[in-house]
Amino acid sequence: MLREIHARLPHENLIYFGDTARVPYGNKSSTTIIRYAREIVRFLLSRDVKAIVVACNTASSYALEAIRELTDIPVLGVIDPAVRSLTQKSATDSVAGLIATKGTIASLSYEAALKRLHGEQRLLTRACPLLVPLIEEGYADSAVADLILRDYLGPLAEQGAEYLILGCTHYPLIARAIARLYPQFKLIDSAEETAAELKAVLAQKNMLRSEDGGRVELYVSDMTDSMRSLQQLFFQSQVDIFEVAQVGDDH
Amino acid sequence: MLREIHARLPHENLIYFGDTARVPYGNKSSTTIIRYAREIVRFLLSRDVKAIVVACNTASSYALEAIRELTDIPVLGVIDPAVRSLTQKSATDSVAGLIATKGTIASLSYEAALKRLHGEQRLLTRACPLLVPLIEEGYADSAVADLILRDYLGPLAEQGAEYLILGCTHYPLIARAIARLYPQFKLIDSAEETAAELKAVLAQKNMLRSEDGGRVELYVSDMTDSMRSLQQLFFQSQVDIFEVAQVGDDH
Repeated sequence: MLREIHARLPHENLIYFGDTARVPYGNKSSTTIIRYAREIVRFLLSRDVKAIVVACNTASSYALEAIRELTDIPVLGVIDPAVRSLTQKSATDSVAGLIATKGTIASLSYEAALKRLHGEQRLLTRACPLLVPLIEEGYADSAVADLILRDYLGPLAEQGAEYLILGCTHYPLIARAIARLYPQFKLIDSAEETAAELKAVLAQKNMLRSEDGGRVELYVSDMTDSMRSLQQLFFQSQVDIFEVAQVGDDH
Repeated sequence: MLREIHARLPHENLIYFGDTARVPYGNKSSTTIIRYAREIVRFLLSRDVKAIVVACNTASSYALEAIRELTDIPVLGVIDPAVRSLTQKSATDSVAGLIATKGTIASLSYEAALKRLHGEQRLLTRACPLLVPLIEEGYADSAVADLILRDYLGPLAEQGAEYLILGCTHYPLIARAIARLYPQFKLIDSAEETAAELKAVLAQKNMLRSEDGGRVELYVSDMTDSMRSLQQLFFQSQVDIFEVAQVGDDH
């Protein structure tokens, strides 16, 4: 996501916050996710950001409203862009699969977005809690991943899904294996659409930066050993990392 | 662990704290683990406990000293009991494998305990970051688990390990699959030994309760959907669960 935004808006200064001290969010309750999201947003607001992208499906599913209560700047989630992409690309009578964390699936946020955006596609959903750990441990292309993916995606294929929404920001990293096992799925991922929407929103508000800038800062709540390799995995370039001992309290 | 302690000390009132809002600890840095452990210990001290068992290998590896700075009551980890069991059961020239989280392996806490307890067994170690998610998602007995276990344990078997220390409190739940794939390993797990050590410590300090009591309270930092099923998995009985919105701050 950071990569797509940086590519499309090369002059914007970007601040990325990764909550490495408390990830993963996918299995946590809505109450806890909202609390964490508010703490992080307070940190970002203290850095004077002009817009916020919630680049996590689980947080987008549960915390957007709570975040918007804290600020008047634009706050974008990743659910609407993915659903908009689906409604634009697919026929109204088509069937789409959605894979995501347990939290995102349980929230019914994609169903709500589909309704809000007047989509009539049929949505088949499946929580895939093992994909994030597999990806993070370097097993995206492995016999193990194939077994798990067949377990998770087989039922969606049997029920005739033509499209597959990658409803977690990690999943593009396992897209190659999915495409190999299930070439019939047209994959939809929210990164490009979200970056495009961010650009449109900034342009509309006359907030686009057209020169200089382009600085990327990466903040984490815990400097874990795997942070640098994850950084390589996601960003494919060297970016400075700063550690934030504790994000703002939200008692 | 709670089960073993409850079985061996049926009259003691037990308070269990599960940091569900921030698990897993296995991939986090020592700084963060120490901070979390201190916060939890402050909560337990506020409930007037007479002893503390750190029933997590990663926290035992990094945070025991920091915890002991906060209190004079007995604080037991799980590393020494497992190593003591190894030194008692195995010949001094035997080879033992250790499987654990990345954090526990990186800490070298087992090597340090072996030295402290004058053990001369050779220790082969392997971080197994996927076992906890597999167990939590119900894949302990599956083709997927078999593949991963062969990946993790194969090298230990090839190098002639006779004993295998289950260096994470989740791992006894995958012990059956390990025993099926590698019947040559004699498994060592710290739960029984830790419970025995707790009883010995309390007896020595004349703090054993000999009648009534036996209440078990379970506290979690996040009431997740999977908490109840995990509870069944680990405790095999109904126990009251309380949610603690936020454990004491440790700024």
